Order: sequence, then C-alpha cells, then structure tokens
Amino acid sequence: MSRTPKTTFTAACPLPISDYPEVTMAHGAGGALTKRLIDEIFAPLFRNDQLDRMHDGAVLHLTARRTAFTTDSYVVNPLFFPGGDIGSMAVYGTVNDLAMCGARAQHLSLGLIIEEGLAMETLWSIAQSIAQACVETNTTIVTGDTKVVDRGKGDGVFINTAGVGAVQTDLDISPAAIRPGDGIILSGDIGRHGIAVLSAREHLDFETEIKSDCAPVHEPVLALLGAGAEIHCLRDLTRGGGATALIELADKSGCDITIEETKIPVDNTVRGATELLGLDPLYIANEGRFVVVAPARETDRILSVLRKFDVSKNSKVIGSVAMGTRSDGIRPDGTDTRGTDTRPGVVSCQTALGGQRPLDLLTGDQMPRIC
Amino acid sequence: MSRTPKTTFTAACPLPISDYPEVTMAHGAGGALTKRLIDEIFAPLFRNDQLDRMHDGAVLHLTARRTAFTTDSYVVNPLFFPGGDIGSMAVYGTVNDLAMCGARAQHLSLGLIIEEGLAMETLWSIAQSIAQACVETNTTIVTGDTKVVDRGKGDGVFINTAGVGAVQTDLDISPAAIRPGDGIILSGDIGRHGIAVLSAREHLDFETEIKSDCAPVHEPVLALLGAGAEIHCLRDLTRGGGATALIELADKSGCDITIEETKIPVDNTVRGATELLGLDPLYIANEGRFVVVAPARETDRILSVLRKFDVSKNSKVIGSVAMGTRSDGIRPDGTDTRGTDTRPGVVSCQTALGGQRPLDLLTGDQMPRIC
Repeated sequence: MSRTPKTTFTAACPLPISDYPEVTMAHGAGGALTKRLIDEIFAPLFRNDQLDRMHDGAVLHLTARRTAFTTDSYVVNPLFFPGGDIGSMAVYGTVNDLAMCGARAQHLSLGLIIEEGLAMETLWSIAQSIAQACVETNTTIVTGDTKVVDRGKGDGVFINTAGVGAVQTDLDISPAAIRPGDGIILSGDIGRHGIAVLSAREHLDFETEIKSDCAPVHEPVLALLGAGAEIHCLRDLTRGGGATALIELADKSGCDITIEETKIPVDNTVRGATELLGLDPLYIANEGRFVVVAPARETDRILSVLRKFDVSKNSKVIGSVAMGTRSDGIRPDGTDTRGTDTRPGVVSCQTALGGQRPLDLLTGDQMPRIC
Repeated sequence: MSRTPKTTFTAACPLPISDYPEVTMAHGAGGALTKRLIDEIFAPLFRNDQLDRMHDGAVLHLTARRTAFTTDSYVVNPLFFPGGDIGSMAVYGTVNDLAMCGARAQHLSLGLIIEEGLAMETLWSIAQSIAQACVETNTTIVTGDTKVVDRGKGDGVFINTAGVGAVQTDLDISPAAIRPGDGIILSGDIGRHGIAVLSAREHLDFETEIKSDCAPVHEPVLALLGAGAEIHCLRDLTRGGGATALIELADKSGCDITIEETKIPVDNTVRGATELLGLDPLYIANEGRFVVVAPARETDRILSVLRKFDVSKNSKVIGSVAMGTRSDGIRPDGTDTRGTDTRPGVVSCQTALGGQRPLDLLTGDQMPRIC
C-alpha cells in the first residue's frame, strides 16, 4: 500500500502577505500583523472548527480509554532537503511518536518560532507542507502559537508540535515490556535522512541523490495492532540512529540486544557516503524507520503485515533479545542483583567479518541539527 | 487565599553537569550527553511515572468528558526578570490558557531549544523554576524534548509547553458565546509584566522596582466554575495587553465593547514608566491577568469569588458589551446584515476626560520578545 494524499496543497504564495515580503518582529507582537499572518496563511491552510473558534486552546472530545501525548521540536538545517522539509517532518515526527505508543494521532498543536527576515514565501511553503502532511496522516492542527525573534537570534524557523492520539491497544508498549527471547524487526534501510540533510547543508553531490526516508509510519503500526500482534515495544529511529534507539531500549529494559550487521539494509549510495565521511550508518538519523520488539513466535506474522506497506516493505528481523541486568540491579525475571555485579543491558553487533562489537552511546556530536 | 507552594526547589546546581559548565551541541545530539542532561537535570526535578518510562510519549487516562489542549512558545528576553523567569512563565502561561478554556491543567509537555553555550547553572535554575511551577499548579511534565542549536542561532533558551486539562464545566466558554448586555470584569492592575521585562532588558531603574504579574490564575477561574457562575468568555491578557484581547473578543463575537479608562487599575510606578516611555498601559503585556465576560446579573457574584484570591483580589467591572455586527455580517441575534452596512465588533474606551477613543490593533511592534 502506498500513501495516497487526498489533497495537494500547491497554491502559490498569496504575496505580498500582510504587505510584507518578509516576516518582521511586528508579525510576532500579537497585533494587527499577527492577525493577518494567521488570517492569510494559517487559517486557510489549517481550517477546522477548533482553530476557527480563535480561543486560547482547543476543547476536544477524547473518547479513548487511553490517550497518548507527545512533543518534539524541530530545528533541522537546512529547512528543505531532498525528500522532505521541516514542515512535513514536524507533523510526521509527532504522528510517529504517537504510533510508537500504539496510538492513532488525532490532534496536533503547532508552535512556530520564526526568525525576523524569513521570506513569506518560505513560511508559506512550510505551512503548505504542514497542511499536506496533516491530510496524509488524518490529523488536524487545533491550537497554535507564533513567535518572532530578532534577526540572528533564531535560524529561519523552529517548529514545535505536540500531539494527542487514541491508544489502539490494551498492550503495554514500552521498554519495560521487552523480554528475553524477543526478536528485533527493523522496518527498512537506515541512514538516508541524515545523509540527505547533510548533503543539502554541505552541498555534497553524490552519484545518486539521496532522499530522506522522512515519512509517517502510523499505517503499518496501526495495522499491526489491528491484526492483534503481540508487541512488546516500538521505537522510531531518529537522532542517534538505530544504535542509539536500541541502546536506550537495552538500558531501560535491562535486557541485552544482539543485532547482525549483515541483516541491516543500507542503500549503496548511503553506504558510500558514510564511508567517505567516516560515519557509521548505525548512528545516522532516520525519520521514517522504526523497530518492533516482539516475541520470536510473532515475528513472521508481523513481517507479513509490515511488508504490505511501502514505508515498511523491506522489514527484516535484525536481531534478538537476551537476559541482561537492569541498571538498577533488577533482572527482567525479577531477580534482585543489587549490590552484586550489576550492569545495564547492552547492545552488540555481529559484524560482517564474524566479530562482535559493542555499541555505545556517542559522546560527541556526529551530526548536528538533523531533526 | 494566597498561593502556598508545597515544595520549594532550591538545591544548588550539581555542577559540573555532564562534566560541562555549558551546554554543547553534543548535549542535543541524542547520545551520551543528552542522556546525562536528562538523567542529571530533568529526571530528578520532574520525576513522575510517565517520564520514568522513557518512551516516545506519555500514555494518559483522561476521564473528562471534554479535554482542553493548548500550546505556547516562550522567547522572553531576558530569561530572568523581576517577579519571574522564562521557566515559571512557560508553565503558568499554558496553565492559564487551559483555565481560559474552563479546564484544570493536568499534564504538560516541555520542548527546550537551547543555544550552544548556555551556562548549565542557568539551565538548572530554569528547570528548577519549571518544577516549582508544576508543583504550584498541580501539573506534571509527562513528555519532553531537548534540542541544541549553534551559538548565534538561538538566544539562551526558547521553551515550548503544550498542555492538556479536564474541562470543568458544560458551558461553552468562547468568544462566540459573548452577548449584548454582558459585563467585562478585569482581574487586577495591568501592564506590570511588560514594564518589568523591559526594565530588566534595558536596565531601566524606576523609583520602585516593578515586578511582573506573572502568576497562575487557575484557582480563581476554577472557583468561579465550581460556584456555578454563568460565564460567557474568559481571556488572559498577554502580548498586546488588555486592548488587544478585547479587540479580538469584539471582532470574533461581533459585539461592541466599551470600557472605562478610569476603572482600569494601573500601578503608579507602571503609569509613570509608560508615560516616560510613551507607551499605552492598555497595550502592555500581562502574564497573570484575565477578563471574564458574563451576564451583568452575574457580575457581583463573580467579583465576590475572584476577590477571595490574591491573584484576582482587585477584580473590577471595567466595561460592558453592546450589540454589534460580526465581520461576516451576522449580528449576535442572528440578523443577516450581509451586503448592508456591516462592520466587526469594535472596542472603545471612555477616557478620564469624558472623551471616547476607539481601540485598534497595533500595527507596529510596541515591545518585542515580551513572552
């Protein structure tokens, strides 16, 4: 199944917006120009009953037994990159975080921090991209806020979204639910987002253009839950890449995780780029990839569901979970090992050459402003 | 009733945090230093079950029939000012926006965009202030995100909070509910927040130090709802001050609003400062003031409730609502005046000298980065 957006936002920017080609400090002052920015850009693109009320917040009828709530700020540089932009990313990222909680995203908030001098056309493009991403993910922006900071005190635009969504399962999907014997499924190839952003920022030309994997992953996740698959944990791979995500899961669950390098799909151009730049694909950011941690007996069923969707058609089992020791000294089976020889769960990678290398959190900053 | 915080966060900064006196780009990279920032600053101060899960979002049991949802970003400059700081403001502001929807704030998200080079001690102070404000308002930070941007691409720290809260009334509290014959109640003196921030930013010394009115206003609002008062609309006065808030209400409701200048409390030092600076107190930002729009027969009861609370002890009726014409040409009584002589609701101010002046949205930027 491929994504088929119901609407496409391609209207030209209604310049001059508020009679200004650029955002000024006054557009953030709450007065006449803030009103025009809202009336001329945001209201027509994001139109819905809640926003139309123009009140201090939205009032929602949430009927799910459990509601997921999450937030992320987006500071990616540059604002546009092959395969995506900060606007769609700000929607997909929060939709994906809600999906990782087993929830269907419903309502989003949108907080913009705009640098004085941002071209109105740029703001319009980003707002269109946000509106388009909302249609694709069946979400609405129900409340928002716009601030403007002085030139040189921001960087184009920073976006925060928070989201609420209805949890679609009774399962406890969290790192604490991970158990020895679980399999680790990865939803596709890794590293494209980080390399795509870096290539746009540094004007690097690779043989083939590398496009970000930036995409919403709620459809395969909701299909998994709908199919009644037993899932212990979900985690999307963002900053810090696959390695960082797995290390966090091992650390929090107290279980050890082993992955096989040869099973992890990496696009050839991405691999070439990482070799050239001295980077490890396992630590490169993704924006449309996730891992599923589930009992080994469930992995075939899970793969058959995931592979029905374009965004996860290359899903594979890449590793497994074994008994470890939580950092607080309690093993997953309840054994109290505090005061004895304790350690958090660790992640190791079986290399192509047959060796084993431990994966640790990076202490440096491999790739800044990637999301 | 005065606010009596249950806990006070005054612990010294556990320097060096993450072995660094300043926030570095690596603290935002999602790796080892991000983890230490979370473990050493945020986790101990914000501790709660949801955050401890360390998942991509919180999973909440929201049982109210209606849930309010709101967001604001805070970019105030400077970060600390007489009477407040960006941290407490980011909590109070969102709690207040939820209160304006008739809701009791429950759970907050926290998104930090930190400029590289921010002193760890500053971040610690702000985080303490956030934690303290959460205790005061009985809210918890259940999900969060930290990003770091390069030096010169931010300004210390920008904060976004979003919040969800349980609506405590069956009333429709919104601009559309405003009716001719309503009274306008203001909860206290105006202009202190704007002048306090400006004095700190520009190092202005006034005879008496002017402290911001920055405060949570949920207690009087929830008491009003608990007392069963009929309320048509609530609006807190922030950017753009009292005038801007009332103009928005008039515009959206289609009603005309008249206020009496002599009834609007302004602290003497604030008045002196605004005269000196050529500013109009009606347009100066507040962070702890709100207006209640309610039928005239209810205003005495409302005043008696509001005056029980320190934050609203100087509440007064400052004006009234009359028939107007909505900007879409539909009068509040349903009369369709489209195609005839239509206009949006307007606000006018009876001056001390007996004159009448119309209040319009400002087109310029009276006071940037005030919230």
